[in-house]
Amino acid sequence: MNFCSQCGGPVQLAIPAGDSLPRHVCQHCGSIHYLNPKLVVGCIAEWQDRILLCRRSIAPRYGRWTLPAGFMENGETTSQAAIRETLEEACARVDIRQLFSLVNVPHINQVHLFYRAQLLDPDFSAGLETLEAELFAEDSLPWKSLAFQSVTLSLQAYFSDRKAGHFGFHEETIQRDQRLASDLHQV
Amino acid sequence: MNFCSQCGGPVQLAIPAGDSLPRHVCQHCGSIHYLNPKLVVGCIAEWQDRILLCRRSIAPRYGRWTLPAGFMENGETTSQAAIRETLEEACARVDIRQLFSLVNVPHINQVHLFYRAQLLDPDFSAGLETLEAELFAEDSLPWKSLAFQSVTLSLQAYFSDRKAGHFGFHEETIQRDQRLASDLHQV
Repeated sequence: MNFCSQCGGPVQLAIPAGDSLPRHVCQHCGSIHYLNPKLVVGCIAEWQDRILLCRRSIAPRYGRWTLPAGFMENGETTSQAAIRETLEEACARVDIRQLFSLVNVPHINQVHLFYRAQLLDPDFSAGLETLEAELFAEDSLPWKSLAFQSVTLSLQAYFSDRKAGHFGFHEETIQRDQRLASDLHQV
Repeated sequence: MNFCSQCGGPVQLAIPAGDSLPRHVCQHCGSIHYLNPKLVVGCIAEWQDRILLCRRSIAPRYGRWTLPAGFMENGETTSQAAIRETLEEACARVDIRQLFSLVNVPHINQVHLFYRAQLLDPDFSAGLETLEAELFAEDSLPWKSLAFQSVTLSLQAYFSDRKAGHFGFHEETIQRDQRLASDLHQV
């Protein structure tokens, strides 16, 4: 951040009075610009014993498989974001069940939320950011070609809970090293 | 948003290619500036059968009671944010238990998260944004002087679960009208 989005003046990092962290402060109008983590929200969408995955047609991780998910927008709720992303990425309509996982990814300032959801029908197709959409059973899931560690962790917890006969709520944190290690294994 | 934070050029609302919503797009360098919801994270901090509340020394809702909570910062996890906010607002140290509630507040583009937590000791005091910090039992809680509807909903669910002998996870959405009605009742 170089300029103030309010007045166009130059910003500098400084710790405002009563604050403890450096912020981008406008040298002209005094506006303080805060940077905060973003929410990425999606679905573990079920159809019978299978789960809907999307193969990415965009960077990052072009060609890898992911759960339908994306950045939450202003003015919507977390479950509305999950429904919208599933429609956009897989042209699929879902009924939301319950929040299943929260995965912190602090090194990229993101929090990922995945809901359990039921596909309303098996009529889906690739959206604009998707090469192909497909239903996978646990034993045919492309574990080594998943796009994101948060997806891997959430799907592992999902199948583990399903075996146990009870779906809980799962919170995880992905550290930078874990991500790199996962990248190496998944290439 | 009037100016580009990258180059200082003027921004205009336009729908970028492949997008479906208007964004602030720089007319000079083409940067797209997205606005996304912010996370507010805090604690329902327990000491024996009582809960820690803080009376606000800042706007909005000066003088009303709230759970210790605040905006999540870049580079931290949700539970780290809850611990930090409880330390900043009530000078209290907590051990985090489990995520208890997620409250969507879409008309102000916020998602509130509250963790159940245990105070490590009853040694707390008012932080910079707090007039006073105090422990309350359920029957002495200042229900009519609470600052935010998300706090009221979370505390109602907390005491209900405590009576039932089992703490679950709760998701709620606050609509604008609900907030206004609540303001009227709480003034």
